[in-house]
Amino acid sequence: MYDVITLGEAMVRLAAPGFGRLEQATSLEMRPGGAELNVAVACARLGMKTAWVSRLPDQPLGRFIRNKAREQGVDTEAIVWGGAAERVGVYYVEFGAAPRSSSVVYDRADAAVTRLAPGEVDWAALFAGSRHFHTSGITPALSPSLADVTREALEAAKEAGLTTSYDLNYRGKLWSPEEARRVQEPLMPLVDVLITTEEDTQVVFGISADGPTDANYEQVEASSYAQVAAQLGERFGHDIVAITLRSGASVWFNGWSSLAWQAGKFYTDTVRDLEIVDRFGGGDSFAGGFIYGLQHYDVGEALRFANAFSALKHSVPSDFAWVTRAEVEAVLRGDALRVKR
Amino acid sequence: MYDVITLGEAMVRLAAPGFGRLEQATSLEMRPGGAELNVAVACARLGMKTAWVSRLPDQPLGRFIRNKAREQGVDTEAIVWGGAAERVGVYYVEFGAAPRSSSVVYDRADAAVTRLAPGEVDWAALFAGSRHFHTSGITPALSPSLADVTREALEAAKEAGLTTSYDLNYRGKLWSPEEARRVQEPLMPLVDVLITTEEDTQVVFGISADGPTDANYEQVEASSYAQVAAQLGERFGHDIVAITLRSGASVWFNGWSSLAWQAGKFYTDTVRDLEIVDRFGGGDSFAGGFIYGLQHYDVGEALRFANAFSALKHSVPSDFAWVTRAEVEAVLRGDALRVKR
Amino acid sequence: MYDVITLGEAMVRLAAPGFGRLEQATSLEMRPGGAELNVAVACARLGMKTAWVSRLPDQPLGRFIRNKAREQGVDTEAIVWGGAAERVGVYYVEFGAAPRSSSVVYDRADAAVTRLAPGEVDWAALFAGSRHFHTSGITPALSPSLADVTREALEAAKEAGLTTSYDLNYRGKLWSPEEARRVQEPLMPLVDVLITTEEDTQVVFGISADGPTDANYEQVEASSYAQVAAQLGERFGHDIVAITLRSGASVWFNGWSSLAWQAGKFYTDTVRDLEIVDRFGGGDSFAGGFIYGLQHYDVGEALRFANAFSALKHSVPSDFAWVTRAEVEAVLRGDALRVKR
Amino acid sequence: MYDVITLGEAMVRLAAPGFGRLEQATSLEMRPGGAELNVAVACARLGMKTAWVSRLPDQPLGRFIRNKAREQGVDTEAIVWGGAAERVGVYYVEFGAAPRSSSVVYDRADAAVTRLAPGEVDWAALFAGSRHFHTSGITPALSPSLADVTREALEAAKEAGLTTSYDLNYRGKLWSPEEARRVQEPLMPLVDVLITTEEDTQVVFGISADGPTDANYEQVEASSYAQVAAQLGERFGHDIVAITLRSGASVWFNGWSSLAWQAGKFYTDTVRDLEIVDRFGGGDSFAGGFIYGLQHYDVGEALRFANAFSALKHSVPSDFAWVTRAEVEAVLRGDALRVKR
Amino acid sequence: MYDVITLGEAMVRLAAPGFGRLEQATSLEMRPGGAELNVAVACARLGMKTAWVSRLPDQPLGRFIRNKAREQGVDTEAIVWGGAAERVGVYYVEFGAAPRSSSVVYDRADAAVTRLAPGEVDWAALFAGSRHFHTSGITPALSPSLADVTREALEAAKEAGLTTSYDLNYRGKLWSPEEARRVQEPLMPLVDVLITTEEDTQVVFGISADGPTDANYEQVEASSYAQVAAQLGERFGHDIVAITLRSGASVWFNGWSSLAWQAGKFYTDTVRDLEIVDRFGGGDSFAGGFIYGLQHYDVGEALRFANAFSALKHSVPSDFAWVTRAEVEAVLRGDALRVKR
Amino acid sequence: MYDVITLGEAMVRLAAPGFGRLEQATSLEMRPGGAELNVAVACARLGMKTAWVSRLPDQPLGRFIRNKAREQGVDTEAIVWGGAAERVGVYYVEFGAAPRSSSVVYDRADAAVTRLAPGEVDWAALFAGSRHFHTSGITPALSPSLADVTREALEAAKEAGLTTSYDLNYRGKLWSPEEARRVQEPLMPLVDVLITTEEDTQVVFGISADGPTDANYEQVEASSYAQVAAQLGERFGHDIVAITLRSGASVWFNGWSSLAWQAGKFYTDTVRDLEIVDRFGGGDSFAGGFIYGLQHYDVGEALRFANAFSALKHSVPSDFAWVTRAEVEAVLRGDALRVKR
Repeated sequence: MYDVITLGEAMVRLAAPGFGRLEQATSLEMRPGGAELNVAVACARLGMKTAWVSRLPDQPLGRFIRNKAREQGVDTEAIVWGGAAERVGVYYVEFGAAPRSSSVVYDRADAAVTRLAPGEVDWAALFAGSRHFHTSGITPALSPSLADVTREALEAAKEAGLTTSYDLNYRGKLWSPEEARRVQEPLMPLVDVLITTEEDTQVVFGISADGPTDANYEQVEASSYAQVAAQLGERFGHDIVAITLRSGASVWFNGWSSLAWQAGKFYTDTVRDLEIVDRFGGGDSFAGGFIYGLQHYDVGEALRFANAFSALKHSVPSDFAWVTRAEVEAVLRGDALRVKR
Repeated sequence: MYDVITLGEAMVRLAAPGFGRLEQATSLEMRPGGAELNVAVACARLGMKTAWVSRLPDQPLGRFIRNKAREQGVDTEAIVWGGAAERVGVYYVEFGAAPRSSSVVYDRADAAVTRLAPGEVDWAALFAGSRHFHTSGITPALSPSLADVTREALEAAKEAGLTTSYDLNYRGKLWSPEEARRVQEPLMPLVDVLITTEEDTQVVFGISADGPTDANYEQVEASSYAQVAAQLGERFGHDIVAITLRSGASVWFNGWSSLAWQAGKFYTDTVRDLEIVDRFGGGDSFAGGFIYGLQHYDVGEALRFANAFSALKHSVPSDFAWVTRAEVEAVLRGDALRVKR
Repeated sequence: MYDVITLGEAMVRLAAPGFGRLEQATSLEMRPGGAELNVAVACARLGMKTAWVSRLPDQPLGRFIRNKAREQGVDTEAIVWGGAAERVGVYYVEFGAAPRSSSVVYDRADAAVTRLAPGEVDWAALFAGSRHFHTSGITPALSPSLADVTREALEAAKEAGLTTSYDLNYRGKLWSPEEARRVQEPLMPLVDVLITTEEDTQVVFGISADGPTDANYEQVEASSYAQVAAQLGERFGHDIVAITLRSGASVWFNGWSSLAWQAGKFYTDTVRDLEIVDRFGGGDSFAGGFIYGLQHYDVGEALRFANAFSALKHSVPSDFAWVTRAEVEAVLRGDALRVKR
Repeated sequence: MYDVITLGEAMVRLAAPGFGRLEQATSLEMRPGGAELNVAVACARLGMKTAWVSRLPDQPLGRFIRNKAREQGVDTEAIVWGGAAERVGVYYVEFGAAPRSSSVVYDRADAAVTRLAPGEVDWAALFAGSRHFHTSGITPALSPSLADVTREALEAAKEAGLTTSYDLNYRGKLWSPEEARRVQEPLMPLVDVLITTEEDTQVVFGISADGPTDANYEQVEASSYAQVAAQLGERFGHDIVAITLRSGASVWFNGWSSLAWQAGKFYTDTVRDLEIVDRFGGGDSFAGGFIYGLQHYDVGEALRFANAFSALKHSVPSDFAWVTRAEVEAVLRGDALRVKR
Repeated sequence: MYDVITLGEAMVRLAAPGFGRLEQATSLEMRPGGAELNVAVACARLGMKTAWVSRLPDQPLGRFIRNKAREQGVDTEAIVWGGAAERVGVYYVEFGAAPRSSSVVYDRADAAVTRLAPGEVDWAALFAGSRHFHTSGITPALSPSLADVTREALEAAKEAGLTTSYDLNYRGKLWSPEEARRVQEPLMPLVDVLITTEEDTQVVFGISADGPTDANYEQVEASSYAQVAAQLGERFGHDIVAITLRSGASVWFNGWSSLAWQAGKFYTDTVRDLEIVDRFGGGDSFAGGFIYGLQHYDVGEALRFANAFSALKHSVPSDFAWVTRAEVEAVLRGDALRVKR
Repeated sequence: MYDVITLGEAMVRLAAPGFGRLEQATSLEMRPGGAELNVAVACARLGMKTAWVSRLPDQPLGRFIRNKAREQGVDTEAIVWGGAAERVGVYYVEFGAAPRSSSVVYDRADAAVTRLAPGEVDWAALFAGSRHFHTSGITPALSPSLADVTREALEAAKEAGLTTSYDLNYRGKLWSPEEARRVQEPLMPLVDVLITTEEDTQVVFGISADGPTDANYEQVEASSYAQVAAQLGERFGHDIVAITLRSGASVWFNGWSSLAWQAGKFYTDTVRDLEIVDRFGGGDSFAGGFIYGLQHYDVGEALRFANAFSALKHSVPSDFAWVTRAEVEAVLRGDALRVKR
């Protein structure tokens, strides 16, 4: 019954205001965040019937996360509720300015979500009549139990005939490249649509572009990334591989683009100039926009839609893409950056 | 007795903080704003004796607007007061970041000002001994009654020997191009100084530059705009026509310039690079600076002064130009962007 | 399929921070509010499946309201969407301190909700399998069209076998006592549960307590209000009449209680001492708690529950009752005002 | 031409937010304040044509003060402007909670106002056709030059036939009781209306109540203060003496009242219960309300009006009385502390 | 070399602003807090040379805590530093209003401090030449390792000839009464000065007052608590037992007092009326003030000093006692709650 | 015993939030600031044992400054304390946007520090066993007494064998170029390490680059500045001369570099692109980083370290360099501006 179902953690995001440092802060801005919740929100905002599956503790911060998902129109009925004494993960954010990059301090060990166990979610019921399932590499990284749930969900999704997508989302603070590969390689054949970055595929699967890229991934060379996408697709049997490309040696400004491979065909898009308000959740908004696009357009159009959508997300202070479809369409039309009066 | 008198609406401006969206906001920054009040404030700050004519309800928000005009030294004695149950118009602002433009949601229908009727303001008394009258295309767009008041005021101003200026300020959310033309074309012969943009003259009077301009008005070609100014001046018999030019495909940075036509002669100015804090009221500050300039300098100097003044206004969070004459002079001198210690 | 369905307006509530005045404010706190939405939120928070019916414009502020309802778990699928150029009503709040009372400036004329027309909501579908319908005297006061919708909804609810409740909620700024009586008297026989205050029944229906009450309703005499409840119940055939009682000549502190009449029997409760953070929505939270109570307890227990719930709501900055059932139970148990560690 | 003219300093008031301490603060709330400016604002808000005379430096903080006076409708044309390198006085405020009192750190030495010299203000022009002149004991305390200006102004006022009022306002951090007496005793015969507290008259003139008052002035005994007023009036020849009375051993709650003596007759008023938001400027608002009252009512009515007005001022975060005449009238009518809807 | 050394955890305290709920918050106020750090800060502010021993991770939040201790003049050289990937405990605070109590959500499992192990702190060096050691029942409750460190520290302190104090501080969310008793009973003979509440001694040691106390500890009966103190002192051989007494069925107002027993003699103090800004850390400030008092006065004077000091702390938004000795002395003198000018 | 000791003033810095003007502000952000305190903080943060010598009044703002120095790990034991009635200097900051530069209003006359007199600091004790002494040209500019203390300290430092550094820091609002030269020329032979800008050496000592530099110092030509450094070094006998170079006609972006001369040898560094959050204290952070570098590296490395450190400081809202050594090392390694996850 759902257009999209995602599985994953969500955390309380606490950000130092302005460009302040955590050491200096006297207050922190509180928002929700989490890769797969971000994707769910993107999908729901674009009008898809979307559910998010996770595990939250029954205390104010757990309700905070649940409420914020609901606020965006995400169905939260499938959340598994833990006890009041359990915790929600937290991550602390600082927004940078060159030469200081934005940074994150994670505090998510033993969050309630890590205790989600196979058998606790009725996947068959959720997936009956549904179209798309999405998760990311963060989910299996969080705990062995969640790794099992990830596999359980992907298998159930395939069995129920859903399209599956997976964002590689490598997090070096959660596991080593070796662990990431060991756990995720067996999952790849269950994935129809792989979304990733050149950097992550290099780290996790050792697949990298032939052409010259600088060590910091600051110079984007789309053509060489196309080969990466092709290698991934061919190795794991994905239908579609999409790679997002962020460029520029600046914190406040980036170029933003992506490319996609499908059955040997490549699709690219223009590089969009971003004035960056908040880059967190940028990749997740691409994933959400791309899933939307795949349900409404061909791959090339889906790519353009997803790029424009995630470009807009970078202008909004939140992990969530507080953006409307009409705004995406205006960007795609090339509307001027003027105030409409 | 006044150097400048302006007529028009003012609203409560409620802006989402930072670069947040209205949907996200938990508080809104409250400031006053309104094209002709902005002009009056600019004039008063520059030292001219200035009055603003409007209609406000006798409730806290009406007093808020009145107080803020007074704070800037604008004479508010000529305001017509409506009842406590009437409303003040509101506009909601979001500040953007490329590729998301800044945007506005207006809520000004049936504001107290729209009920201002001919005969309620004693123009003869106000204009006796005064020098300049200014209004803009927003005023007649707000209600038929205000359109009548606009004509009444312009006629009285001309009769009393004042110089009149008019900013075309087309607002597509208030009326159609046809209505705008029908109402304003008869007013133009009453206008000595017309202030406008190429875009607005194209929309309202169908007068456009010959040369190639891109559809989004992002590329400024001053020479072609000069022809526009000349056509306007010759068609309607204006003494002076000034056109402001904003360039650049960015939200945070613009080039800013303007040109003026007087009796067949053109005046241009350098393009100033703006780091934009708040572009609302930018055009109004030009008008205010230009009126000041016309009372103190020749047209070329007035143009330079107005450009520098409005360039500074873009650096200030407000519709109002919280800027001093000394600061304009520093910009005109080319002072470095260093902290004075 | 719903435990509760409510019908009514919602507005953007803009409050001056702290105890500041609107004239002084430089920012306003933005929250949603509206009598029947408040009731729906109360019901949803207490675990009932709840829908709210209204009409909102498709622009950021309309979405803001919708989102905030969803955040609380209220179903918003039945909202009728108007155009992007329509408006949301706004009310401006000041929090007082003796001898200055808290105050409100309403700006809700011509809000999108006022254009909701009979036939636009599929009441039969909504009510099928549902249990309770609630609205208040604000709804028919907003426009003749809404008055028709109110009647339409009440009749459909009775036909579908739902329990109906109605909060008299007289608003002198919306209509006269005569109009209020003329429109609402015919509705009363459709109302099973009437919720009101002594003041409102006096103004609208001319029913007042015999005993001595002071002109400002500051001294509560529960016994005399019981007669009022009985008169109402007998005159209009209500099953239950509940009256809330606020006492105390202070802004920061009130006594809070209520009483109920059912079939000739009276129920009263203790007076709870309130340290008041936000009294707006206090009565609505009573209504929500009472509806919950009627679905779970007898009238006397429902009254106790509703009183405790709305007493807690007064401690929270919002029209909404950000309160949990567990907290109500702690108050009912008489837990000490100590920090649980 | 003025109903009221006041003379005195104004400062930037920087307050720690909430109930925080200065040592803890990371931001300070900035507002204007100053005894005689506060009085001028009170008078202007009540509808009197009011001018404030002072000396300010021509830099942003000087303009800040001037602007805020204008915002309230106070005429600022008579301000004497000093150089850009001069300073504005500052005072730092902490709001307390029992057993911690609210407190102030002054930093006003050598403020621009202290350099105001006799002969710089054209009193004759200002006073021509005017009705009332007011200053307070802070003005002569600030500098010998200002003491001379105070005398100059009082003499000019008497000569021009104005009523004069003087608030004793003893400030122990500015001068000793001996100095205060030496400078002010000669001024007293120039004062028609003396406004003071029992504490100040005791410290400066050694006049105290016979009856038992506790050392902290927390217990008010109106009758004994009446004798103080009478002694003052008889000793210095004042027409009217008014004494404000604050009671209560609490920071958040006070009783507030006052009494007046005129030609041997006493006037008292009820004690109003205050929920205190901001007590700074409380006495000044009494003075302003009393001046208004004396121009519109008899002494007894003026006292009632002034008490209600200053009671309301205590509910507003500011030295200024952001209060309207209509609100005063509601308090005098005894309106309930209910929200008007 | 230190006057006082304390041992214990510190956390980041994140509080919902105003009286808001965590579920509603969009920002949280960040401050440091922790029972024994609070005590250390109190001691350092009163002029004692004070060190705080703990374990913190080398990341921004660890530095935040360390910095804030230093800001107060607490020596932080003895802190043991953990790795950058470790965490700081967090607690989330809501400030209540009757009938809603203030509340706390703890998230401190596996904080870096819980890994502090015996042998890591050079107690002998720290204690050489020092006078007083303090810790509380929270420390051994946090982990078995910390329980060992607590014993290690107390034994070393006694050996080095220091006076030891211990605040029982029972935390039901950390351990059961049985565990608390099992671990702490053996520590008691090492404690010279026991500080506690009647409630905690009842829960942990089963020692309660004979006289009638209500179940919520809202009614204070000092005499019966005296027996509790005596029982404790006699049973465990403490030199001094102090019990703090909080009374009142309100969130915003409490009565505050304490009593002490020493060698069979009782000391009591007046009940101070508190207008409560922040009750967190209230007991810790008593402990700090009492330690100060014991080094400067006799027990009775120490008690009076500690009560006044902690009464003042309740007026300050922080766990820390941002209070000066001069302010304590003013309270002890009975200075009026007037603004000093 | 100290690695570094600095001497100088510190002020309360009050900044208008965002890019607002002081005239507009309703709150000001409060932070500490002061050239030599900034240097001390930089040194302490980098791990050096650092003391700061100054004079502060014993009132909340004096304690505020002292506390903030302690928070950073700066030893404040050598501060000389003045009376509670003395003042702390204040400076008011506005952050600009092109074409409006950031600006400062100073209010520091007669601050407590200006009364520091020779003989009050026991330099011999402080310097015994210490390594480095630093002050700047602001210190002797503040008062004749401080000029004497500056000389006293430099002489004592040389006598005790410390390395001395001096930042020329010319402040035109404190003294004329002639005074600056007269007072400082005799100090120069006591200075081992001179830190300055081309602009300041030109103004104070008339030493300027030969090559073409534009009048606003916006175009940096490192080679010509090298000659300036050499001239300074040779004329005054400094061991090392370092010159910081800021370039770019923008407020939000600068190029940042520096060069050093030592014994005839020149060292230069790359120009770092800054996204500027707060340029105040930028030069001071260079000085602190350079002192650190000189104690750990050779001059070339010290220069690179200092440049990277001060480049980072520009990204932080504060005069203080809330930066860690690890972050400097990341910049020096050329780490990408990516979020580390």
